[in-house]
Amino acid sequence: MRNILSKKSIKFVKSLQIKKYRKQEQSFLIEGKKNVDELLRSHYELHSVYVTEAFYDEYSHKLDEKTTPVFLAKESELVQMGTFKSNNSVLAVGRIPSLSLPKFGPDEIVLVLDDVRDPGNLGTILRIADWYGIRRIVASPESADFYNPKVLHASMGSFSRVQLHYTALTDFLKHSDRPVYGAMLQGENLHQTTLTSSGCFLVMGNESNGISKEVEALLTHKLTIPNYGQAESLNVAIATAVLCDNFLRQKTGN
Amino acid sequence: MRNILSKKSIKFVKSLQIKKYRKQEQSFLIEGKKNVDELLRSHYELHSVYVTEAFYDEYSHKLDEKTTPVFLAKESELVQMGTFKSNNSVLAVGRIPSLSLPKFGPDEIVLVLDDVRDPGNLGTILRIADWYGIRRIVASPESADFYNPKVLHASMGSFSRVQLHYTALTDFLKHSDRPVYGAMLQGENLHQTTLTSSGCFLVMGNESNGISKEVEALLTHKLTIPNYGQAESLNVAIATAVLCDNFLRQKTGN
Repeated sequence: MRNILSKKSIKFVKSLQIKKYRKQEQSFLIEGKKNVDELLRSHYELHSVYVTEAFYDEYSHKLDEKTTPVFLAKESELVQMGTFKSNNSVLAVGRIPSLSLPKFGPDEIVLVLDDVRDPGNLGTILRIADWYGIRRIVASPESADFYNPKVLHASMGSFSRVQLHYTALTDFLKHSDRPVYGAMLQGENLHQTTLTSSGCFLVMGNESNGISKEVEALLTHKLTIPNYGQAESLNVAIATAVLCDNFLRQKTGN
Repeated sequence: MRNILSKKSIKFVKSLQIKKYRKQEQSFLIEGKKNVDELLRSHYELHSVYVTEAFYDEYSHKLDEKTTPVFLAKESELVQMGTFKSNNSVLAVGRIPSLSLPKFGPDEIVLVLDDVRDPGNLGTILRIADWYGIRRIVASPESADFYNPKVLHASMGSFSRVQLHYTALTDFLKHSDRPVYGAMLQGENLHQTTLTSSGCFLVMGNESNGISKEVEALLTHKLTIPNYGQAESLNVAIATAVLCDNFLRQKTGN
């Protein structure tokens, strides 16, 4: 089901680089083979796919399985629509699903992001969550937008397996009866702490300011990655990985 | 000791963004307050400092302690010389020290980078090494350049406390009698492995291809960070942090 690419389509896809238009259209843009591949295999509803002739020849069996309109485009048009400096294959538009805050499983570790603003960090955190089997993230409304092309790109496909819910964290945490761990520079030594093997929240803070005072007041445990050298801090994605690694190691009895 | 900034100086500093000129001049460029501050407190020899009048007024006590020539510059000139989009304070040129491969301490963990090419990853790895008290890194000659401005920037000042030596890894590892651990996608479960508390090498591989066949042949232990979800891999800096965290936790008996 191949279609002709119009200037209007180009403009539409390009507009999805901006949050305002993503919200208005309830759609987002995915670029590159790896991420589009993950999108095709995911639960996401597709709006349209934009491919070069060469890519279509190779992938028509996968694309024709779906009823999604496929548009043939030149490489230069893909570059015009997307954020990559070069894109010799594919670009797709997916529908943003409407999610409501789920009931969390009794043993579920849920990441909570208090104002993580850098899209690269958020994307990397999605990849880490996906590695450690964490399926749900709750983030403050000021955090980076999940559907920002930089987030999706940095997630290396993991965006399709990890859900993110934006909500006011203080209200959310106030009504929870699970342990709430927070990564702080001053807290209990992570390596000397017995972590829960039941469901819990794990809060990571803003890149410059850490966890906000309001959220800090709702933590039940403050954790610190022990510092054996002289660096003043770790990047928030790095710290997330180290904490997840310790939680999962203890949870699996190692 | 304030000096007048000439076009020649601007050109000289700007040239240090390029590896060829860094090598020729045996000098490198450092940008921004935090990194220059670390440089001033480090063992590095300084070549020159470029500051705005406002910055000089605040920092003259620190700058005048040294015999390094200080040049007053406008913000626009700092931007012209450096890589930042804005720089309202300071830029410095340091001398590249000549290092020879040291004798490693009996309990020292040494990171080994097999072709880590992304400057952002290398800078982040320096910061992680510094956090975990790792002082020396050995890298293949194809790895990113330590003095690349992006590396120095991403290191958040840790460049001044971590040494990096470039050398051919196969020759280097062949002549070592320490355990050589490597991070692989197929290896022993990191969480179920008793790691040495003595000196060792910990090899991290290239962003796309992992550890090369030649270096893999010299590993004494292959380690894998257990995957509890579906992401295909972790970023090399993330994996470095998780491995360092496990080594240091076991080393300190936790």
